[in-house]
Amino acid sequence: MTETIAGYGYGTAGRSPVTMKDLEELRASVLFGPQDEEALRLAGDVLEDQVEDVLDVWYGFVGANPHLLASFSTPGGQPVGEYLDRVRARFGQWILDTCRRPYDRQWLDYQHEMGRRHTSLGKNRTDAADAASHVSMRHVIALIYPITATVRPFLERKGHTPEQVEAMFQAWFKSVVLQIALWTRAYADVREW
Amino acid sequence: MTETIAGYGYGTAGRSPVTMKDLEELRASVLFGPQDEEALRLAGDVLEDQVEDVLDVWYGFVGANPHLLASFSTPGGQPVGEYLDRVRARFGQWILDTCRRPYDRQWLDYQHEMGRRHTSLGKNRTDAADAASHVSMRHVIALIYPITATVRPFLERKGHTPEQVEAMFQAWFKSVVLQIALWTRAYADVREW
Repeated sequence: MTETIAGYGYGTAGRSPVTMKDLEELRASVLFGPQDEEALRLAGDVLEDQVEDVLDVWYGFVGANPHLLASFSTPGGQPVGEYLDRVRARFGQWILDTCRRPYDRQWLDYQHEMGRRHTSLGKNRTDAADAASHVSMRHVIALIYPITATVRPFLERKGHTPEQVEAMFQAWFKSVVLQIALWTRAYADVREW
Repeated sequence: MTETIAGYGYGTAGRSPVTMKDLEELRASVLFGPQDEEALRLAGDVLEDQVEDVLDVWYGFVGANPHLLASFSTPGGQPVGEYLDRVRARFGQWILDTCRRPYDRQWLDYQHEMGRRHTSLGKNRTDAADAASHVSMRHVIALIYPITATVRPFLERKGHTPEQVEAMFQAWFKSVVLQIALWTRAYADVREW
């Protein structure tokens, strides 16, 4: 990170209610191991100078889907430009954090903070935005597909072997599922999380 | 379906609170379209005589992970054999339903019923089982990864082109994400679903 990213709170988030044991179980469920950590390090190098291109694809997708753009719009339906921009900068950093951060207690705490920022307890506050009150949990879960599938072409672009690309892709897929599962902990009153 | 599957309630489920418009939005989020429906029809033909082999892989995975096996075990930790068997038969039918059923109102209703059967409102009742009271939502979400990734080798086994295998795999991946997103609707008190 060379510049300060507005509202980026890695390392300063409150403690997640999720335990390291919970995390260990979720890692087992998505078969996430040391080889995936290694593959993600490589993916970080591959994606580093393509982050804006990835974000262009994702923002293009959001912009093309009214039910997704609504999360970045006022209740009246007006997209909030500054909010879109500020989230975008953090979204770019999220790509690199996914690849490079150790999945430790600090990471777990920030997972919860990211989840919270999608719910009415945390949304808009970081950016003093007047957008929709929350992102419906179902839409966060559904985004597992596009956030995973769209990354593959970018992983293929730096001359790595098919085996390396596949390892990076699988590790990315696992991490996205793991992170979204963690984010849902913040959703209001999920008693059976 | 050539035999009756115990507790299989397709077509007799109560109405899901999820609307067809909700479903349409989720389909858009996972980029699910007519080509995916076609690819899933083909996947149904490919998987039909491999269902038991797929289930062997999945049950092997569950059996190897205590936090997953716990859902099929008594609170004291004893796996419930009959319950495992009855769920397995329905799980096999779920593979074929994923490939062959139209994703219509009836399908949507049964999605909700499947979700409900993972929560304390519905779990165990169909089978009069004394297993754990619910499956934690995070584990249901995390299973998106293994339920998707493990299917690929089976899709490759019938001599289809790499393009056909890829199309079947992507359609399967999309459908699994879509269905898990729908299942979470049943979780107790998700106010921001």
